[in-house]
Amino acid sequence: MIQFDVSHAASFLPPDWLSGRTAALEQARVMLEEGNGPGGDYTGWVHLPRDYDKEEFARIQAAAQRIRSNSQALVVIGIGGSYLGARAVVELLNSPNFNLTHKDGPAIYFAGNGLSSDAMLEIIDLIKDKDWSINVISKSGTTTEPAVAFRIFKALLEEKYGKQEARKRIYATTDAHKGALKGLADAEGYEEFVVPDAVGGRYSVLTAVGLLPIACAGVDLNALMEGAQEAMEALSISGTDNPAWQYAAARHALYTTGRKVEILAGYEPSFRFFGEWWKQLFGESEGKEHKGLFPASVEFTADLHSMGQYIQQGERLMLETVVRFAKSHGSVTIPHDPDNVDGLNFLAGKDLSFVAEQAMRGTLLAHVDGGVPNLTVTVPGRDAKSVGALIYFFEYACGLSGYLLGVNPFDQPGVEAYKNNMYALLGKPGYEDRRAELEARLK
Amino acid sequence: MIQFDVSHAASFLPPDWLSGRTAALEQARVMLEEGNGPGGDYTGWVHLPRDYDKEEFARIQAAAQRIRSNSQALVVIGIGGSYLGARAVVELLNSPNFNLTHKDGPAIYFAGNGLSSDAMLEIIDLIKDKDWSINVISKSGTTTEPAVAFRIFKALLEEKYGKQEARKRIYATTDAHKGALKGLADAEGYEEFVVPDAVGGRYSVLTAVGLLPIACAGVDLNALMEGAQEAMEALSISGTDNPAWQYAAARHALYTTGRKVEILAGYEPSFRFFGEWWKQLFGESEGKEHKGLFPASVEFTADLHSMGQYIQQGERLMLETVVRFAKSHGSVTIPHDPDNVDGLNFLAGKDLSFVAEQAMRGTLLAHVDGGVPNLTVTVPGRDAKSVGALIYFFEYACGLSGYLLGVNPFDQPGVEAYKNNMYALLGKPGYEDRRAELEARLK
Repeated sequence: MIQFDVSHAASFLPPDWLSGRTAALEQARVMLEEGNGPGGDYTGWVHLPRDYDKEEFARIQAAAQRIRSNSQALVVIGIGGSYLGARAVVELLNSPNFNLTHKDGPAIYFAGNGLSSDAMLEIIDLIKDKDWSINVISKSGTTTEPAVAFRIFKALLEEKYGKQEARKRIYATTDAHKGALKGLADAEGYEEFVVPDAVGGRYSVLTAVGLLPIACAGVDLNALMEGAQEAMEALSISGTDNPAWQYAAARHALYTTGRKVEILAGYEPSFRFFGEWWKQLFGESEGKEHKGLFPASVEFTADLHSMGQYIQQGERLMLETVVRFAKSHGSVTIPHDPDNVDGLNFLAGKDLSFVAEQAMRGTLLAHVDGGVPNLTVTVPGRDAKSVGALIYFFEYACGLSGYLLGVNPFDQPGVEAYKNNMYALLGKPGYEDRRAELEARLK
Repeated sequence: MIQFDVSHAASFLPPDWLSGRTAALEQARVMLEEGNGPGGDYTGWVHLPRDYDKEEFARIQAAAQRIRSNSQALVVIGIGGSYLGARAVVELLNSPNFNLTHKDGPAIYFAGNGLSSDAMLEIIDLIKDKDWSINVISKSGTTTEPAVAFRIFKALLEEKYGKQEARKRIYATTDAHKGALKGLADAEGYEEFVVPDAVGGRYSVLTAVGLLPIACAGVDLNALMEGAQEAMEALSISGTDNPAWQYAAARHALYTTGRKVEILAGYEPSFRFFGEWWKQLFGESEGKEHKGLFPASVEFTADLHSMGQYIQQGERLMLETVVRFAKSHGSVTIPHDPDNVDGLNFLAGKDLSFVAEQAMRGTLLAHVDGGVPNLTVTVPGRDAKSVGALIYFFEYACGLSGYLLGVNPFDQPGVEAYKNNMYALLGKPGYEDRRAELEARLK
């Protein structure tokens, strides 16, 4: 399912980029497979595509069917890993304009992932004349952004349908045993799905966290999981022809020889939020102890006319990873123009996807010539099965990569810093001293 | 209009970060004002907010009025600077969901900024049952992406309305005197607007390039230009209290002391594409001769749960520039919860924008404590006048900054590389040798 091409980075890599790392990769592989490395308690995603809870999976599909039949809108409340994976897959398999273009089932609005009043008011306005439901996703139920949003949307739903009926329209994806949201869901009788203990947010897209919104968008979950499972089976095997080994080794070798930024490049507007998901996956897994490649993403060919100049001739600190979908969906033929005003008649009769493919190939060589190593990941198409495989490929490569870097790829100790400052400045009880100190610094 | 705060970068800056650069800044200022530095032929944007063509400006407003009254959709065809500025302003002043939420006037679809068949087919499907018009924006008329899109949408428009009526629905923004699109527009009788010779794409948002689509979205162009003019007047003055001097000096000082990445942070989802515009502005202006800060952007607080970990604890190679809108639009009050399940009753009765403000302040200090210098740009609000000022502030600071860096901030020699490779691989006549060479390397 996954093809990885390192040939356009070869001239930038030391000869032993892979052979010098096979022992470390094998060690990393065993730590992932056996869950006994740093952060091993959070490697539940490794065998998830095979071992997932089939009963819950069926309930997810049934709930999605219900939501698709009784709701014109679904408000998905969650932040970070509780939103990026679902949004990435929904947009990649449909369009960034999903809510404008979807033909059946609900529009999907992601809320509780920020603190913008205007963004929230917009969603409230968009759903007010529709039938709608909520999927609230939070392991604890106390993270500020989703908790505030849930207070607001829950009140609106109860106002619209009454408390009794509203309960049937709230789906809670949360801890299996404890926590504020779990307690509330039990008390109110919401249908519940599980954020597994052993799967961190950024690795959770193939759990109920991602799957319920994705299914509501009409995506074939079986194909998604099938792709992930095929990738799981292929990538768990030791060997230098393992594409996840190659990707992890190449980016680590480039990092240790001075590359500091990795740019993920796609050629479809629908790929934009997959890039955002990938940035969280790698940035949050590796960005610790003052280490790690800074993750960035671009949408080509649009950004060849914005970031292209920098990539071609700016500071030489980047490597580039291109994701290629071998087959495009629709077909557009470039028309002939009798006057040939724009001089493009040499393209007349050709398919636009042919032009896109040549742009991609030409860009690859241009960037290599400019001094940017290029890695290419190819999947068969922009379909659920391919995307399942692509997700798993990046997750597995990220786990390997984090271990090569010598960090725990499964924690995120730095995320607390802003929260604690925010609580203090908001006047949360118990933070009085910190508040005074911060206010003094902000004067 | 523009407030700049360097205090949260102070501990990272050498004592002479500003005083040591005043001579160079004064020299840069004169080069911008007099247009006699490197790339001086492209400094037409400097006095544009005062000297713009008032007759054309009125025609832009009249054309927008016509389009708003006879079209439910406007297809804007352009790439790079011919699309990012307009999209940035339309979304920032409305929403990333403009096409879902706009109450009057046309939906605005940006086409010709890539080579995705699916993205193009989606637009074709969205407009097919509507009345629509085209604004094609290209100085030459021969850039592949917009030229191909124009062939396709022009044919569709002629098919729908007939050749005669279609001509009245095509608005061409192009060179004043020459080029393929100019010739065609003259021959067909399209209404024409000018891409000025002295203004490069990334500085063109306040010319017809940006203004026509922006006006079609219902934005008050007078306020936009007024804000830009106020900024122009304020920023042209010599002095260390000039916010553009401070921004240019601070980022240059941080760059020369080891920072390699600048992250632009906003707290509104509607700010996302302004970040893309900013990335082109700075990346394309400075990213040459193997120099320049790599421009990246984030949407907080969403990305505090994705990129936040890296920013807090990853490689120490970033500086961060936060754009703050002092006033938010709407108001959302956080409801009281008798059960206080999520423990957030200390926020009950508070406005969400208060929470957002404390998140911003807390994040600032958290990132500084993590080793990331923070610069803050504050404008009064998310209104046309403020945004006009913000655009001009970044443009002017970018011009100064490029001169401090010792590059020509107004060329983009690296953008040709991918185009030439693409032409060769597409089989454009005259590129036969290059094609053979490239194909051999791609085997």
